[in-house]
Amino acid sequence: MSSSRIVILGTGNVASILGQALRNNGCEVCQVFGRTREKVAALASRLDATPVCNLDTLAIDADFYIICLADQAIEAVASRMPRVEGTIMHCSGSLDIDVLRKYHRDAAVLYPLQSFTASRNINLATTPFLLEASSPGVLARLQQLASLLSGNCLNVDSPVRLKIHLAAVFACNFANHMSAIASELLEREGLNFDILRPMLSETFDKILTAKPADAQTGPARRNDRIIIDKHIDLLSCDPEWKLVYELLSQSINELNKRNNDV
Amino acid sequence: MSSSRIVILGTGNVASILGQALRNNGCEVCQVFGRTREKVAALASRLDATPVCNLDTLAIDADFYIICLADQAIEAVASRMPRVEGTIMHCSGSLDIDVLRKYHRDAAVLYPLQSFTASRNINLATTPFLLEASSPGVLARLQQLASLLSGNCLNVDSPVRLKIHLAAVFACNFANHMSAIASELLEREGLNFDILRPMLSETFDKILTAKPADAQTGPARRNDRIIIDKHIDLLSCDPEWKLVYELLSQSINELNKRNNDV
Repeated sequence: MSSSRIVILGTGNVASILGQALRNNGCEVCQVFGRTREKVAALASRLDATPVCNLDTLAIDADFYIICLADQAIEAVASRMPRVEGTIMHCSGSLDIDVLRKYHRDAAVLYPLQSFTASRNINLATTPFLLEASSPGVLARLQQLASLLSGNCLNVDSPVRLKIHLAAVFACNFANHMSAIASELLEREGLNFDILRPMLSETFDKILTAKPADAQTGPARRNDRIIIDKHIDLLSCDPEWKLVYELLSQSINELNKRNNDV
Repeated sequence: MSSSRIVILGTGNVASILGQALRNNGCEVCQVFGRTREKVAALASRLDATPVCNLDTLAIDADFYIICLADQAIEAVASRMPRVEGTIMHCSGSLDIDVLRKYHRDAAVLYPLQSFTASRNINLATTPFLLEASSPGVLARLQQLASLLSGNCLNVDSPVRLKIHLAAVFACNFANHMSAIASELLEREGLNFDILRPMLSETFDKILTAKPADAQTGPARRNDRIIIDKHIDLLSCDPEWKLVYELLSQSINELNKRNNDV
């Protein structure tokens, strides 16, 4: 297994990080496929692989074909790939395994539940990898491959993976947006977002170590209408954020009541 | 200054943390006031202070009277306090200094921009303290006192302090709620919230080190309608969370467009 031959399809963050990690763990990345010649050449060179811009010239004897592309591009590429011996997999949280199975017998999903950004080092070893495969045999090979990347692998089917992805959007993307709004509110007062960092750091630490619903504080949890109404007044020129504030305050209060009723 | 005499009004987290920190930095906490005899006795004993349950028995010769009570209780207590020589202050993010100034000449606000939870150690030294005072003389004394607690003090008037508090509610309380929703979505699938912690940890690290709007990722930022619609479908039994999802996705997309237009 440590000499698995891999084809990487894609040249973005995930392609680069997975390709590098597999190579560091003894796999051979034989080809990198992509549409933009410069990007393909750059990643292929870093991975000591052959750059490929035409699907017809894909090696057909690799063990794994890892499609690291945007969701919209995955099925198109899978459908145009030549018939190959190895396992074809995608890395998407929200795309069903069937988009690959339609075209290839041995299909799989290798979804790293992580937020990838260029220029940031990610600890893959603790990143959960959600695995799915078209057969027990493929699953066994996938698990062996994934175990090279992470000690935190989990078998999850497509519907559950989509739900986990939804939870991740709430916890990560939406939390980030809350800070983006806060940052803009502060900027308008000539204040730097830095002023919130000590409080944010403590809040995040609590989320990462306790049950989030129990860690909730603030006016919405206490249903402190006087403060809530003062805040809503301040948002009169931002109808969308006012709506966000009202809806989330109500939602916090309802979750709190529900949890206290249980 | 290091021998300032302090009266603490309140027995909650903030009262306990500020009282202890002031005492550790050479102040004398002479009295602790509260309504619940047991709580007052417990905190007073920890701070080596006299417990007081009746406002008429407050010392009138202390330097500072720090009201660490819920917003709704602050004015009632301030109005019933005896006339004292020292400075009366509250620790609220959203309450105007005027609720104290109505009743006392020397009034101030000492608002720690932090999320206090019992049983957690807080690094006060880096916590921003927002200061406001009824006169330059009071401000000077307040700054001296606050400098014992933190190296991060800022003069902020009541209207701006309320806006900072609003930003904190977005960034902290609402972000926590996003994790509370995610946690419940996962629980329904029999999954533990732990599965999200590596991704959350990376997301939070980005928020704490970069501009949040720039760090945004995910389907809403890309306006990936296919994924967004799949997620919304999953929330058909949770109309409130569905609304949250739709509203925040739209808000992320609009902020992103706005920032790219600039």
